[in-house]
Amino acid sequence: MPAERAGAAGAASPRAAPGPLQPGVPGGAAPVPPRGPGRQEGPRCSRGIRSRRGIRSRRGIRAAPEGPAPPEAPLQPPGVPVAVPPAMSSASCPSREPPRYLSKAEAEAIEKELLEDYRFGRQQLIEIWGHACAVAVTKAFPLPSLPRKQPTVLVVCGPAQNGAIGLVCARHLRSFDYEPTIFYPKRSPDPLYRDFTTQCEKMDIPFLSYLPTEVQLINDAYNAVVDAVLGAEAEVGEGREPCAAILATLKHIRIPIVSLDVPSGWDAESGGSGGISPDVLVSLAAPKECARRFLGRRHFVAGRFLPYDVQKKFELNPPEYPGTECVVAL
Amino acid sequence: MPAERAGAAGAASPRAAPGPLQPGVPGGAAPVPPRGPGRQEGPRCSRGIRSRRGIRSRRGIRAAPEGPAPPEAPLQPPGVPVAVPPAMSSASCPSREPPRYLSKAEAEAIEKELLEDYRFGRQQLIEIWGHACAVAVTKAFPLPSLPRKQPTVLVVCGPAQNGAIGLVCARHLRSFDYEPTIFYPKRSPDPLYRDFTTQCEKMDIPFLSYLPTEVQLINDAYNAVVDAVLGAEAEVGEGREPCAAILATLKHIRIPIVSLDVPSGWDAESGGSGGISPDVLVSLAAPKECARRFLGRRHFVAGRFLPYDVQKKFELNPPEYPGTECVVAL
Repeated sequence: MPAERAGAAGAASPRAAPGPLQPGVPGGAAPVPPRGPGRQEGPRCSRGIRSRRGIRSRRGIRAAPEGPAPPEAPLQPPGVPVAVPPAMSSASCPSREPPRYLSKAEAEAIEKELLEDYRFGRQQLIEIWGHACAVAVTKAFPLPSLPRKQPTVLVVCGPAQNGAIGLVCARHLRSFDYEPTIFYPKRSPDPLYRDFTTQCEKMDIPFLSYLPTEVQLINDAYNAVVDAVLGAEAEVGEGREPCAAILATLKHIRIPIVSLDVPSGWDAESGGSGGISPDVLVSLAAPKECARRFLGRRHFVAGRFLPYDVQKKFELNPPEYPGTECVVAL
Repeated sequence: MPAERAGAAGAASPRAAPGPLQPGVPGGAAPVPPRGPGRQEGPRCSRGIRSRRGIRSRRGIRAAPEGPAPPEAPLQPPGVPVAVPPAMSSASCPSREPPRYLSKAEAEAIEKELLEDYRFGRQQLIEIWGHACAVAVTKAFPLPSLPRKQPTVLVVCGPAQNGAIGLVCARHLRSFDYEPTIFYPKRSPDPLYRDFTTQCEKMDIPFLSYLPTEVQLINDAYNAVVDAVLGAEAEVGEGREPCAAILATLKHIRIPIVSLDVPSGWDAESGGSGGISPDVLVSLAAPKECARRFLGRRHFVAGRFLPYDVQKKFELNPPEYPGTECVVAL
């Protein structure tokens, strides 16, 4: 059937909305009128590869939503409000341009918008991001490629949100057959973070009570370290204890480091010098300015879940996510 | 490097725990002793294909954790408590036996344990399950295979948790390039469910104000219907309005139905006769008894995230999840 979907030329009439359902009006009930200013707008994808021929979806050219009603769509009585399908889905406006790099203020504004306007929950976002980070680790370090016999990964978690994402990452790594160990020296009293901690503890993920200053012990025992110590909200530098001591250790280890969002000790915008040099960076939602200075091997972005309007408002120019992937390497 | 990991024969000494880190005791601090009764137990996988040779992981035979310490593990000073890695990860004890089918009481007990003992949040579980359901839909109905030009899917949501999972499913379907439309006639006042609704509304997913009784309109407009009306907790039968009317309609549609957990109108144990006949079933956590009577095309299970101890306690005998997949077809 791909032929039926591919290459169908859209044209004219942005209101001849093809499916979803635009039934007649039985019983006097009216279909829901479109909500919000974006609903009945024309094409919403101002950049990228959208054209009159259609949207280049990841599975080929798809008929543009403003195309003529497909034969299977029920006829629309004139004058009846239409539940017009949105012009684009969040993932169908990929671009070949590089993604936008966010300032600290923009990153905060996106998170605020997700939490306050879109009503995402913090638990929900941390779960989504932690899962995506674990998937990124499996892509950067597939099980068969690990140099150590045991698929060990050390996950170092700071006291704030970045640390909670690390906890979720560890939990998913465990279900992906890795053997994570967590170092989480300064536990947050926030019940939300406590719950994420309990999940890991109850799943028998070991917690270390200290990080040895002898880096060779870490190099020998683990295949990689996940740096979930400090995130975009942190002040530049190594901060207070116990973060300073952790960063001093991470600076000298030789096994690869996977940093979540912003490498710990780096400034979200200006980056860091003399700090840690991660091998892998997982940008949450979108890359921050500091990612321009990332010189490691792989840079992943975990922003597929972002609503299209957020992508557009902040001009994120998101990468194309294949299949159902939640992360993609730039 | 796969050769280094594959086929390494484990033997003897369950306590010669290879990594993670078992450092010496600098500064008098001691590593965290193992937590919980499971931590220092021997092999925990009583069924399945575990043997002295190792665990058959999804990437081949992996050395059993009780094997001799790998050369790269730091030496363990005698008498120092060891953060022994758990014997198994949640996904590494797959079995070829069919999965266990749960009674209604068992399904409730698992959810209670996840929420109360493991401290999973309801928001978190709904997000995990909704995402998994969307992935299952993409597997059952890949974009290129859809018979309609527009990748439309109708998601019908009930007032309780099953409906909230449907809302999350719709949101992820949208980010997977589908065009979901939601019918959610009886909205829950629960703030959690309201937030999931807001996320969909703000993402411009259309909501229908009524479901046409003329099923041909539905057949024509959508490629499939996601049935998130009633879940395992519902009483058997069609229940009260608006569910009864919805089920009467769904019974007569000809496009495929994807039911979440328990087909609406079915009893979680005895199934249903004369009710809807879904084409696809997505069992949440583990299949319920009624799934034995499922005669549709594909049966997915979304239980990868379940802690190993829960899988073991309830003898779930989970299927093997490939790669980082969150669902698997039985």
